[in-house]
Amino acid sequence: MKQYSLGIDFGSLSGRAVLLDLKTGEETATAVCEYAHAVMSETLPDGTKLGDNWALQHPQDYLDVLRFAVPDVMHKASVSPDQIVGVGVDFTASTVLPVKNDGTPLCLLKEFEHEPHAYVKMWKHHAAQSYADRINEIAVDYDSSMLSLFGDRVSSEWLIPKVMETLDQAPAVYEAMDHFVEAADWIVWKLCGNLVRNACLSGYKSLWNKKRGYPSEEFFSLLDPRLRHFIDEKLSGPVLPSGVCAGTITEDAAVMTGLAVGTPISVAGADAHSAIPGCGIVEAGHLLIVVGTSACHMLMDTEEKAVPGICGVVEDGMLPGFVGYEAGQSCMGDHFEWFQKACMPSSVVEEAEAIGVSPLALMSEKAKKLKPGESGLLALDFWNGNRSVLDNGDLSGMLLGMTLDTKPEEIYRALVEATGFGTRVIVEQFREYGVPLNKITLCGGIPHKNPFLVQVYADILGMPLFIAPTLQAGARGSAIYGAVAAGVISPEEGVRKLGSAGADVVVHPKRENTVAYDALYKEYRRLYEYFGMGENPVMMTLKKLKK
Amino acid sequence: MKQYSLGIDFGSLSGRAVLLDLKTGEETATAVCEYAHAVMSETLPDGTKLGDNWALQHPQDYLDVLRFAVPDVMHKASVSPDQIVGVGVDFTASTVLPVKNDGTPLCLLKEFEHEPHAYVKMWKHHAAQSYADRINEIAVDYDSSMLSLFGDRVSSEWLIPKVMETLDQAPAVYEAMDHFVEAADWIVWKLCGNLVRNACLSGYKSLWNKKRGYPSEEFFSLLDPRLRHFIDEKLSGPVLPSGVCAGTITEDAAVMTGLAVGTPISVAGADAHSAIPGCGIVEAGHLLIVVGTSACHMLMDTEEKAVPGICGVVEDGMLPGFVGYEAGQSCMGDHFEWFQKACMPSSVVEEAEAIGVSPLALMSEKAKKLKPGESGLLALDFWNGNRSVLDNGDLSGMLLGMTLDTKPEEIYRALVEATGFGTRVIVEQFREYGVPLNKITLCGGIPHKNPFLVQVYADILGMPLFIAPTLQAGARGSAIYGAVAAGVISPEEGVRKLGSAGADVVVHPKRENTVAYDALYKEYRRLYEYFGMGENPVMMTLKKLKK
Repeated sequence: MKQYSLGIDFGSLSGRAVLLDLKTGEETATAVCEYAHAVMSETLPDGTKLGDNWALQHPQDYLDVLRFAVPDVMHKASVSPDQIVGVGVDFTASTVLPVKNDGTPLCLLKEFEHEPHAYVKMWKHHAAQSYADRINEIAVDYDSSMLSLFGDRVSSEWLIPKVMETLDQAPAVYEAMDHFVEAADWIVWKLCGNLVRNACLSGYKSLWNKKRGYPSEEFFSLLDPRLRHFIDEKLSGPVLPSGVCAGTITEDAAVMTGLAVGTPISVAGADAHSAIPGCGIVEAGHLLIVVGTSACHMLMDTEEKAVPGICGVVEDGMLPGFVGYEAGQSCMGDHFEWFQKACMPSSVVEEAEAIGVSPLALMSEKAKKLKPGESGLLALDFWNGNRSVLDNGDLSGMLLGMTLDTKPEEIYRALVEATGFGTRVIVEQFREYGVPLNKITLCGGIPHKNPFLVQVYADILGMPLFIAPTLQAGARGSAIYGAVAAGVISPEEGVRKLGSAGADVVVHPKRENTVAYDALYKEYRRLYEYFGMGENPVMMTLKKLKK
Repeated sequence: MKQYSLGIDFGSLSGRAVLLDLKTGEETATAVCEYAHAVMSETLPDGTKLGDNWALQHPQDYLDVLRFAVPDVMHKASVSPDQIVGVGVDFTASTVLPVKNDGTPLCLLKEFEHEPHAYVKMWKHHAAQSYADRINEIAVDYDSSMLSLFGDRVSSEWLIPKVMETLDQAPAVYEAMDHFVEAADWIVWKLCGNLVRNACLSGYKSLWNKKRGYPSEEFFSLLDPRLRHFIDEKLSGPVLPSGVCAGTITEDAAVMTGLAVGTPISVAGADAHSAIPGCGIVEAGHLLIVVGTSACHMLMDTEEKAVPGICGVVEDGMLPGFVGYEAGQSCMGDHFEWFQKACMPSSVVEEAEAIGVSPLALMSEKAKKLKPGESGLLALDFWNGNRSVLDNGDLSGMLLGMTLDTKPEEIYRALVEATGFGTRVIVEQFREYGVPLNKITLCGGIPHKNPFLVQVYADILGMPLFIAPTLQAGARGSAIYGAVAAGVISPEEGVRKLGSAGADVVVHPKRENTVAYDALYKEYRRLYEYFGMGENPVMMTLKKLKK
């Protein structure tokens, strides 16, 4: 009888369940369930208006993934519950919700159904920026080194600014919650009945460190006296790495999902970080870049080093036994979407229609024929701010070098190149601060769909790039952790045996392009520093004038 | 019997003849003749390939304007030849051709018909840039102040770089020509049989000064020993201001045009400069901006001052008795055309079609609703280099401040604003160097078609802007000079009486917008200096890498 592990990956708009064959490493079946409420950025379901930069979700949508996608994937593969040895879960982060002691989300209680702060605050809920600013100010005064392992700045996407926003704007919600919990851990709790905090998100999103724990009560009381006991009162529970068994499927969970009672559940993880095992990466110095709407860069080492501008350094955060470094680029797929929506001329759309390809595919086709530097254009990829290494959401985009002959495919190529230069800055930052980086693998939808982009990146980085074959790297990684939690395989063996879905595609840099890009990168870097490091704060000034 | 004067205006793609009623100042009729060969930038008529940045014209096209448009306009208005008291001519510049002693263009001779250098080199023929660079280098060593009245730099658009290019690349053409002549003066010559150089173009395009004359033979011999006697050998002829009578219609010219033998012809002028009388401007301190494909700024004063970066200062160059200052912005209507072609998304085109307006009109309508600074965008208007005051054709465009929410109308507004900021730099330069500037009038097609742009300019400049009612300012000015040459009116009286086609429209600045633009202009100016004045020469570096 074949054996499987189940990975459940919760994305921004849908969740998917993937069955991994423990013998062959094959992704036997996949089932997807879209979130009925998607992202709530304008109103609650009852019509209550939300402010600027809000992004909420409804926890019922996550439960529906368990209710529908899990039975569906078993049905598709004709797999019976007893063939599934373990389950792993990964989630977007920091996507957090306030819950009662029994795990009930506050937003499902009658008294809080009209209260925005009672819902799930999604990773891209950016309304807590002022609280993040406050944390950063106080942290510098309190202990100038306390954020050194967190990229020197707390992001508004993290957990603590989000809870401060709730406390400040909806104290009744803060008062009523027994736990403030990552949705990742909440799902595991719903499945096995135990609240276990995962080390990955605790480290990357909640200022937790394996050796030092959370920041002190004194620090929290400086943020707000009412937060002094926040950790004990609202963030309790053991912090454990992914792969550890959090518990087993309860009777309620078995009814909901069709899984067998007693099936082991792994401690959860973040979606991007689960891609590390999902892409078969098991060694230090091997960078994984998940290239999607935004990009996430993950690198493991055996030592913990402070690298300025790198969002987080977490022991056991990616794979037990390693220190995991995370960096990010906030503008990637979004960037090309913007280009298509805001400045792709109708002539391109018509030409693409005539030959039956997508406009962006036509742009890639035309841009591919240009040589580096041929357009005379250079861009800074700050359309959505800069996550690493500048960590400044108030930066904005720049495009330079336009003439009256500048063509759309040249602009498109410049935007792609800019994201490649942004990647190179991150790679150089790791190396400069002594974190070895010898190999780069890409995963996510874009590398599979856009070979032009991968070639540009290889040329800019001057290194071969490997494209992981799986399109379900997060779910695959979670399934591996499910098998590890079940004790049928060790983490390292699991990754080596199950972490790949075939051979990687390798894209080699072209020598003459690399030489040309070295010259362009020098110019990029100078402008990056000029606009990004304070010499000319015009981007921030313009954002202020905008308000 | 009504009396008229005839103005003939030669543009970049067509020539037009306008009959001006000397009593009412009415533009009684207009006739247009398109140039059959338009602009030759790829090949000669025989297929001979042209190099990069070439722009030639065919002199026969100009003669066709005389042959067709002149009889046509008389026919349209039912005006007989003896009702026309005088004729004036204006032309794009420096648009130059090599001719024989009898006025025959070299390109019309069998032996030179395949030779590109034998044709008319248009103002926008930019292939002589390296010769302009050489002149600038030599001039600095020779006499550091010799270019102070010419904006400190010779442009590749001027006459001397163009003749150096001919001498260097086609010495047989140089040898064979008896005269190198502005097309403006060549037309007057064809009409009256006399070669008279006009003071306007001699001053603005050939380094001539009323008091000092042309540069010395020593200087020319430094450029090339073969050029030592260039002025005597190839540029001979009296230099006289527009409005002086150059001669009268010959029998040949009468046959060609239908004009009466003996009709007086004025010395020619440049198209933009003829707009000064054409818009009724007769005083110092009144800036005229011709806003078209590019923009030309003309201002008169009673004294000759050196203003760095202002292309030329010419006594009698615009109106007899005044010193005329010329500045320019190379990217104006072209800029918006580029926007439409290269980055106006299909959604805009569709929306415009649905409501039956042009896409650019829709953009203006949407952009009008935005407040200054609301988009967070800022652009540098260097798409076509910068003529004044940086005088650097190798600069390129820049757009900054984009986010994932940036919309097409915001980009369009930023481009319009950038040209407004560029205008403000010129206005401030005049004032800083002591040239009074109290009033601004706009003429040309764009101010009539685009009230949104005029409002933005008024807000940026913090001054009311007057829009001249005529759409034929150049031809109207030439017609006035025709009447002056005929002796029926003095220049000043001619301008006062005939220089306007009704009341100007006045656009007043809005106080709150002016305040907002003062803040944005400060940021513009800082980037203008950073990229334009050597601190970061990235735009030039990218153009070098492009090659």
